[in-house]
Amino acid sequence: MKVVIAPDSFKGSLNAIEVAESIERGVRRAYPEADTLKLPVGDGGEGTMDVLVAATGGEIRTLEVTGPLGNSVEASYGIMGDRETCVIEMASASGLHLVSPDNMDVLKATSYGTGELIRHALDEGFSCFVICIGGSATNDGGVGMLQAFGMKIYDEQNSEIGFGGGELHRVKTLDPSTLDHRISGCSFIIASDVQNPLIGPEGASHIFGPQKGATEADVAALDKGMSNWADCVLKTTGVKLHDRRGAGAAGGIGGAFQAFFPSDLQSGIDVVLDQIKLDAQLESADLVITGEGRVDHQTIFGKTPMGVAQRAQRLDIPTVIVAGSVGEGADILHDLGVIGIHSIINEPMTLEQAMENTSRLLENTAFQVTRSHFYKETVEKGGLHV
Amino acid sequence: MKVVIAPDSFKGSLNAIEVAESIERGVRRAYPEADTLKLPVGDGGEGTMDVLVAATGGEIRTLEVTGPLGNSVEASYGIMGDRETCVIEMASASGLHLVSPDNMDVLKATSYGTGELIRHALDEGFSCFVICIGGSATNDGGVGMLQAFGMKIYDEQNSEIGFGGGELHRVKTLDPSTLDHRISGCSFIIASDVQNPLIGPEGASHIFGPQKGATEADVAALDKGMSNWADCVLKTTGVKLHDRRGAGAAGGIGGAFQAFFPSDLQSGIDVVLDQIKLDAQLESADLVITGEGRVDHQTIFGKTPMGVAQRAQRLDIPTVIVAGSVGEGADILHDLGVIGIHSIINEPMTLEQAMENTSRLLENTAFQVTRSHFYKETVEKGGLHV
Repeated sequence: MKVVIAPDSFKGSLNAIEVAESIERGVRRAYPEADTLKLPVGDGGEGTMDVLVAATGGEIRTLEVTGPLGNSVEASYGIMGDRETCVIEMASASGLHLVSPDNMDVLKATSYGTGELIRHALDEGFSCFVICIGGSATNDGGVGMLQAFGMKIYDEQNSEIGFGGGELHRVKTLDPSTLDHRISGCSFIIASDVQNPLIGPEGASHIFGPQKGATEADVAALDKGMSNWADCVLKTTGVKLHDRRGAGAAGGIGGAFQAFFPSDLQSGIDVVLDQIKLDAQLESADLVITGEGRVDHQTIFGKTPMGVAQRAQRLDIPTVIVAGSVGEGADILHDLGVIGIHSIINEPMTLEQAMENTSRLLENTAFQVTRSHFYKETVEKGGLHV
Repeated sequence: MKVVIAPDSFKGSLNAIEVAESIERGVRRAYPEADTLKLPVGDGGEGTMDVLVAATGGEIRTLEVTGPLGNSVEASYGIMGDRETCVIEMASASGLHLVSPDNMDVLKATSYGTGELIRHALDEGFSCFVICIGGSATNDGGVGMLQAFGMKIYDEQNSEIGFGGGELHRVKTLDPSTLDHRISGCSFIIASDVQNPLIGPEGASHIFGPQKGATEADVAALDKGMSNWADCVLKTTGVKLHDRRGAGAAGGIGGAFQAFFPSDLQSGIDVVLDQIKLDAQLESADLVITGEGRVDHQTIFGKTPMGVAQRAQRLDIPTVIVAGSVGEGADILHDLGVIGIHSIINEPMTLEQAMENTSRLLENTAFQVTRSHFYKETVEKGGLHV
């Protein structure tokens, strides 16, 4: 009997790898003969690089790049086990977590460092990229990244513009021919679940500006600048980003990829599951166990348990979800072939107690789930006695 | 598919009948075609009368009897659905719950009312009795009950002794011929899990006296009196109760039944499960769901989930336990054929929150359990979609 263990992290207590190990202990205690396969996963958000590198036996590169506010920061990218694909988290170079709340300045924040990170990998000879674009501090339309690749972007006086979304209203012309020519020979998979357009009330500035420190006036200015940038891109390339789905992801860098890079925008969880070749790994599995710290009505929006269950369902493999909290609306996951959703909480306790004991609670829940699922096999080995 | 739902109460929140109803809702939501059979049970302790009367469609009789301290109290007994068997809880007439903590007086407390309760049923023509002897306020060796049936018990001056364990040291002779003759034509099943002997350090007075209000000096006096009583019984009947297993149950009334009544001492859970004819009800069941407020290492000592699982195991029917708290050591129940032990707690919460939401949490857990268990049948009906 083959059991595939494909959980996300339990945020605040265990990373995805530790979660998978805890579950595996429970599975083996219930059914020692089980053939277990640990596939810690992520949904394309924070930690995806570590998960993909670990899952494929890859490695991490670390270098100095330009941080969101122009200062120097240490950032990393991953090389997957195939030694062909690089996985880059934009947040590593241009993330909101790199800026202290007191210093947030979305008008100045640049995606330049993300460009440097990709360029470093290009210099190393890589041409296949997975770019996870969550958690950015920027709202610069990806202009910083384009500048890092040499693109000249001018104002009315034919001077190059500076860093940040606050400069975009000044853009007059841009010269795509100055962009690093190697890019056209590469492939970029952009992992993002943000569907927002570039401008307008549902656009990058209005929806994500405030959480990056933009005031109401800043938002208006940023959206106006972004609109000017979109006009210039349209004029120069014929690509209309204004209302394009996903162009507003990560401060508009989603749009920059769509206009200037050979790229494909995909949901984060699908990118991750493709990269770890989940479908192939699921072959001949009898049970899939996935999970996350919390499952609820939001889980169907691109979270790990949803993605894993969906793939397992296509192959008619039953999936069980384990979670710290099973909130209202989680039952909708049953439509994806989930046969059981179990909280790991075994008695009344505080969140703190649950987080301190996650590993043990996960192991025990996996034990129960496995024993229930394979009880017939246990019977065959001599009755319901263990 | 037949699902037998045989839970105990979740003390403090739902009685066994309400628990069974909550579980049934979850089962039907997961698998509407399921043939459900609700069999709320108890382990012979508090609430057993209600459970047995409800399970068999019987009725309750209420009357005035002598309470533990000689005052008048209202007590009930049950007539089971067969209209042949009466179920009597000793605590109804002689229970500790009838005495306020300030008035506890185990030296005076009498089991007389329990005798009156049984006598009333005898007068009504009943001859089969199930007597649940937990929760008594007494330590009188069952002498009060014997007196209620007319037995003459004398002191050295040939005066009849009074009520309570404090009188037992005065007993000099007893006259079994004065006992109500109808008793010999009856059958008494005594439901008790107490194995203690009548006297000595493991006897009724030492082990249960203190919780009934006995001081250290009282305990010594009670044990001495009980010893004298046992000597007199031995001299008169040839029955040696001193170290007899179970004679110390319920202040020694266990011994009185053994010496003077055609009786059979059985574990509470077995009595209940026999009376509701669980074995016959389990026939052709595909799944049994049982449960209790808490399961842990103590559950194997005669608690409901243990009893139910043991019977189901003999018939090779898988059993799932649901509980508010799954404590350390619960796993030992897997040896009884339990295929899954699930807490109903779905996220970190207080005990109070859990008790306020028991019905909803039970329903949801029963849903998950049922869906997991019958997912193959669901698949046959058109895939894993619900």
